[in-house]
Amino acid sequence: MSTQIRIGIVGYGNLGRGVETAIALNPDMELVGVFTRRAPASVEPVGAATQVFPMSALDTDRDDIDVLILCGGSRSDLPEQSPAQAARYSIVDSYDNHARIPDHFAAVDAAARAAGTTAVISTGWDPGLFSLNRVFGEAILAEGSTYTFWGRGLSQGHSDALRRVPGVAAGVQYTLPSEPSIERIRAGATPELSTRERHTRECYVVLAEGADAETVRADIVNMPDYFEPFDTTVHFISEHELASDHRGMPHGGFVIRSGTTSDGTAQVIEYSLALDSNPEFTASVLVAYARAAARMNRAGDVGAKTVYDVAPGLLSPLSAEELRAGYL
Amino acid sequence: MSTQIRIGIVGYGNLGRGVETAIALNPDMELVGVFTRRAPASVEPVGAATQVFPMSALDTDRDDIDVLILCGGSRSDLPEQSPAQAARYSIVDSYDNHARIPDHFAAVDAAARAAGTTAVISTGWDPGLFSLNRVFGEAILAEGSTYTFWGRGLSQGHSDALRRVPGVAAGVQYTLPSEPSIERIRAGATPELSTRERHTRECYVVLAEGADAETVRADIVNMPDYFEPFDTTVHFISEHELASDHRGMPHGGFVIRSGTTSDGTAQVIEYSLALDSNPEFTASVLVAYARAAARMNRAGDVGAKTVYDVAPGLLSPLSAEELRAGYL
Repeated sequence: MSTQIRIGIVGYGNLGRGVETAIALNPDMELVGVFTRRAPASVEPVGAATQVFPMSALDTDRDDIDVLILCGGSRSDLPEQSPAQAARYSIVDSYDNHARIPDHFAAVDAAARAAGTTAVISTGWDPGLFSLNRVFGEAILAEGSTYTFWGRGLSQGHSDALRRVPGVAAGVQYTLPSEPSIERIRAGATPELSTRERHTRECYVVLAEGADAETVRADIVNMPDYFEPFDTTVHFISEHELASDHRGMPHGGFVIRSGTTSDGTAQVIEYSLALDSNPEFTASVLVAYARAAARMNRAGDVGAKTVYDVAPGLLSPLSAEELRAGYL
Repeated sequence: MSTQIRIGIVGYGNLGRGVETAIALNPDMELVGVFTRRAPASVEPVGAATQVFPMSALDTDRDDIDVLILCGGSRSDLPEQSPAQAARYSIVDSYDNHARIPDHFAAVDAAARAAGTTAVISTGWDPGLFSLNRVFGEAILAEGSTYTFWGRGLSQGHSDALRRVPGVAAGVQYTLPSEPSIERIRAGATPELSTRERHTRECYVVLAEGADAETVRADIVNMPDYFEPFDTTVHFISEHELASDHRGMPHGGFVIRSGTTSDGTAQVIEYSLALDSNPEFTASVLVAYARAAARMNRAGDVGAKTVYDVAPGLLSPLSAEELRAGYL
């Protein structure tokens, strides 16, 4: 048995590229290849040596793969791919449709138990590391309030909504956490926050030719659900500025648990991420959980798992002895 | 079988009092009593209904206790008590002598395996939650640097050293994290920091009658190992100010992992604690791990464990289904 953990990447967008890059940073892991629905020759991987296969190459139940990392989308790819692949391989996915996670878990769990595979679903940072910190916070501080703030980060869904406004030629939207609210919570307060008090939104817009800036601005800030419930700022920029200053995919956020352990004794736990690249970071989390999935499967621990079921030491390339001696 | 988790507290100082208070906040837990080496009548528990027993009351291997939380010190209490009690009960301890943790683990593991008990050692916040975050950070961001800062917090060891200086009638010492260093790391830098660049120390001193302030100050700031390697500030205060302004036991700190996932792509993970009461918070962590110990023991998972071995969901009073539906 190889001591390396052999990984296949399924789907090759920003997340798949991030997984490829992350595997190269982990000497105990080895990339078998990328599996794609596109014509393999049309895919250009980051690494010159990376092999690209058609998705059908997974149908034969290969024994050279320990874990598949599924990098498709939650809307249509993962609901189908995760149970299908878990019937043959141990998998990790980043399924993030919060309301449907129980159904997704049940479908993947049935397939994985029948096949004796291990499937870690819904990992990444939210769901994932943020979910973990919400539970740690409430388990430790039984009395208190939990707050999740996102940003500063590029929001794909809100950027799409922005680009549908008449007069908008191109644009991006950033979600920002409310700094005054965070400061209040850090100081030990446990306020009830309205939507407007949690986040603000910042839009960078390239106007279509002949469009009226004030009309476009009003259409954006008054858009129900997407922008109206927030304090939204609109900046008009050139196509050149959009291309040069807004290419990255930064994101991040905060999970804060503010509680009391006795009268007037405030205790605050804060977890935060500041990410230059959302997909590369999410990919790094998936790779660490792929290591755990491989180990759990070798230990006979099969079925669907979430971050709540995975002992943290399994994420590390170090042994339990090394962790106890060097990290406690 | 009771569905409540029934807890015994061994040792009743600040930590034991904190555990008593924390159990009252967790409806799934129930306090059997405090077990002490002192005369039970001399112990005054927080709760009027709390029963106090002599330590020898544990010798009979009672079946009304699920987990003992050991609240003694790491120097002389826990090295003896943890293996001895793990031979009869599932336990949780906060053993924090980092260099000797492997030996402590081995002694407790042997006792627990022989007895079929589950023993979570070295939990709390450091070792404990900080240890977890060091491992999460390095497992996810394989390339980068990890920083631990402590404070602002009352340091017991340094306060003791301070009080041994001739001319010091009374005093306390606070450790402060270096804000400029933290800001550099938050901005994505990965500096090599000297001891002086990591923490500063702040002393509040009541002078003995007739002592010379300048001599006392110089003796403190030049004390090798304890104060000389740091920028140390000494404030002279009255006995009254010491009593009114320095009664609390605040602490906290930061674990920061600053890494890169590709050229120039910085990713920063930060975990921080701001605690009004160090012992009450540590106690709250011990209580959450006691819940996990009880569950692991019921599932047949026996032997010594550390925070790296405990699946996070086991800390929560909620079921796995509830966590998946409500917290991912």
